[in-house]
Amino acid sequence: MKNTLQNDLVLRAARGENIERYPVWLMRQAGRILPEYRAVRSSLSGFKELVETPRFAAEVTVQPVDILGVDAAIIFSDILVVPEAMGLEYQMLESKGPWFEKTIKTEEDLKYAEVDFDVEDRLGYVLEAIKLTNQELNGRVPLIGFAGAPWTIFCYMIEGHGSKTFSESRKMLYTNPVLAHNLMDRITKVTIKYLQAQIKAGAHMVQVFDSWAGILGTEQYATFSMPYLKQIADAIQEVPLTIFSKGAMSSLEDIANLDCNTIGLDWNMDIPEFRKVIGDKRTIQGNLDPCALYSTHDEVKKLTNKLLDSFTSKRHIVNLGHGVYPDVDPEKVKTFIQTVKDYAIKY
Amino acid sequence: MKNTLQNDLVLRAARGENIERYPVWLMRQAGRILPEYRAVRSSLSGFKELVETPRFAAEVTVQPVDILGVDAAIIFSDILVVPEAMGLEYQMLESKGPWFEKTIKTEEDLKYAEVDFDVEDRLGYVLEAIKLTNQELNGRVPLIGFAGAPWTIFCYMIEGHGSKTFSESRKMLYTNPVLAHNLMDRITKVTIKYLQAQIKAGAHMVQVFDSWAGILGTEQYATFSMPYLKQIADAIQEVPLTIFSKGAMSSLEDIANLDCNTIGLDWNMDIPEFRKVIGDKRTIQGNLDPCALYSTHDEVKKLTNKLLDSFTSKRHIVNLGHGVYPDVDPEKVKTFIQTVKDYAIKY
Repeated sequence: MKNTLQNDLVLRAARGENIERYPVWLMRQAGRILPEYRAVRSSLSGFKELVETPRFAAEVTVQPVDILGVDAAIIFSDILVVPEAMGLEYQMLESKGPWFEKTIKTEEDLKYAEVDFDVEDRLGYVLEAIKLTNQELNGRVPLIGFAGAPWTIFCYMIEGHGSKTFSESRKMLYTNPVLAHNLMDRITKVTIKYLQAQIKAGAHMVQVFDSWAGILGTEQYATFSMPYLKQIADAIQEVPLTIFSKGAMSSLEDIANLDCNTIGLDWNMDIPEFRKVIGDKRTIQGNLDPCALYSTHDEVKKLTNKLLDSFTSKRHIVNLGHGVYPDVDPEKVKTFIQTVKDYAIKY
Repeated sequence: MKNTLQNDLVLRAARGENIERYPVWLMRQAGRILPEYRAVRSSLSGFKELVETPRFAAEVTVQPVDILGVDAAIIFSDILVVPEAMGLEYQMLESKGPWFEKTIKTEEDLKYAEVDFDVEDRLGYVLEAIKLTNQELNGRVPLIGFAGAPWTIFCYMIEGHGSKTFSESRKMLYTNPVLAHNLMDRITKVTIKYLQAQIKAGAHMVQVFDSWAGILGTEQYATFSMPYLKQIADAIQEVPLTIFSKGAMSSLEDIANLDCNTIGLDWNMDIPEFRKVIGDKRTIQGNLDPCALYSTHDEVKKLTNKLLDSFTSKRHIVNLGHGVYPDVDPEKVKTFIQTVKDYAIKY
């Protein structure tokens, strides 16, 4: 597959190979900001119909490649397809975000956390969307697959919705660590099968999102997230793997010791500081503040160049430090992307 | 006032003086967890009536001293009384949290961010509650006053409600930094007047809560929060000052350089690591994970002793790393407090 790609910058950067310029893409680039996305979205009954209909998911996945000129596509989907496949159906409520009718509170509830099912059947719609996307991309750029990290998926399965503190989830780590590990183990097994299925379907690279990493202390993160991230990192060997643990500042050194290629940094993390910690053994992805894209075009250019100037290695994939915000002007995103493309690597 | 206190442990710990054991209190100890609080609360029309009625605010402030045996009281109030006094009325919605009808978007809106008003008039109900509380406490323990940090209050004045990203507030830092600094300056002026009025009314110590510190990168925190925290720290000299910047891990060294006595740490921050950064020049407050109180009594004791064993100095005020969660069993809180009281300081 690699050989057929016309632009494989993001893969070379992930592997620490030579690159002629820094590659750039944006988390949440598919959807949200583009009028072309909203046109597709508004013709459907809701977010889930879009996620579950391969031809539409593929269409919005390709849009930012055509319109914004990013160096990678990322499949349009949601991390919550995994808990749903395991037995917990979710709804996406317009103003409230995700909502699960059932949640996991006791050992008994583990019947809603199935492991031994056919991922290619229950999540076939994502795999089909990956295949369709690659057909449409026709090798222009690589396609990134993704999944939520076990700790983050665990939070939704326990809580049933978003939360500022996820105190129900954290409570279980104290009150029933055996059940917590049991559930985390199940999520991990399914996640590995799911990522492998995405790779088989055509994903050229995969990313694991630990969106709620930042609400655990270092020790609990080491106990309840790291072992499962390690299982995933050890299992995914065919394509480059990116781990993005938002807010896990004190765990970055441990994460860099996992068998992954790239570490995502959020916008609060200082790149030169972290580069000192890991040296050149991993690629760093990130991390312009998504709010920087609210600035003027000149300012976006300046802030992007400042970020690029802070790099002391060629092992970088440029991205925002969080998903792009819905009300950002796509023209500002183009300025960000063009500034990265125009930048001459110093190494 | 100090001489009349029977227990001034928390003040001595803040000043780095000798203490016979570590003092302990809990953020949000007044309210939420106590049935005695809920009895008072349910007799009233809502949260705001409680905040605005000095005799009730004083009553729930004293409750944890009587019932839990903490070493300090903290006045029952809300950080949002400051933006309200400045011109933005808020409501406390049962399930949604704080809600402001008006917000600040333009220079024009600064009319809702008044500075030159009589704090003792508009916030007289808090000052009266402080006086009543001290009468009821009768010198048993010190009374802590508090305010939100300018950055955190700014977030509410811009956004009008809570948010996961506070992207509207962060947007203004890029699109209109002049307005942002202007508003921050106004909030700071009022906050200083307000804290000084609390001290004059009888607060023995004050704490500034920068609850949304963690959503800014280090550089923006240095630009948009630190100068205002510095103004506050420089202005408050009569009583010990605590600064609690939740999530501001990379800014802790700068905060420790402010003229304050105590730095609050959230539960994700490693005490020995931070102690190395600041040495013995400041007292550290915190930081048991509030979720640890969901454990068994034995486990609470074990986790509390583990925290205390990690101290390498006597400059500590023991607390949770966040406000106590509403559904925690008060008996577990008592176990936490008793464990701290039974602990023999090694220094």
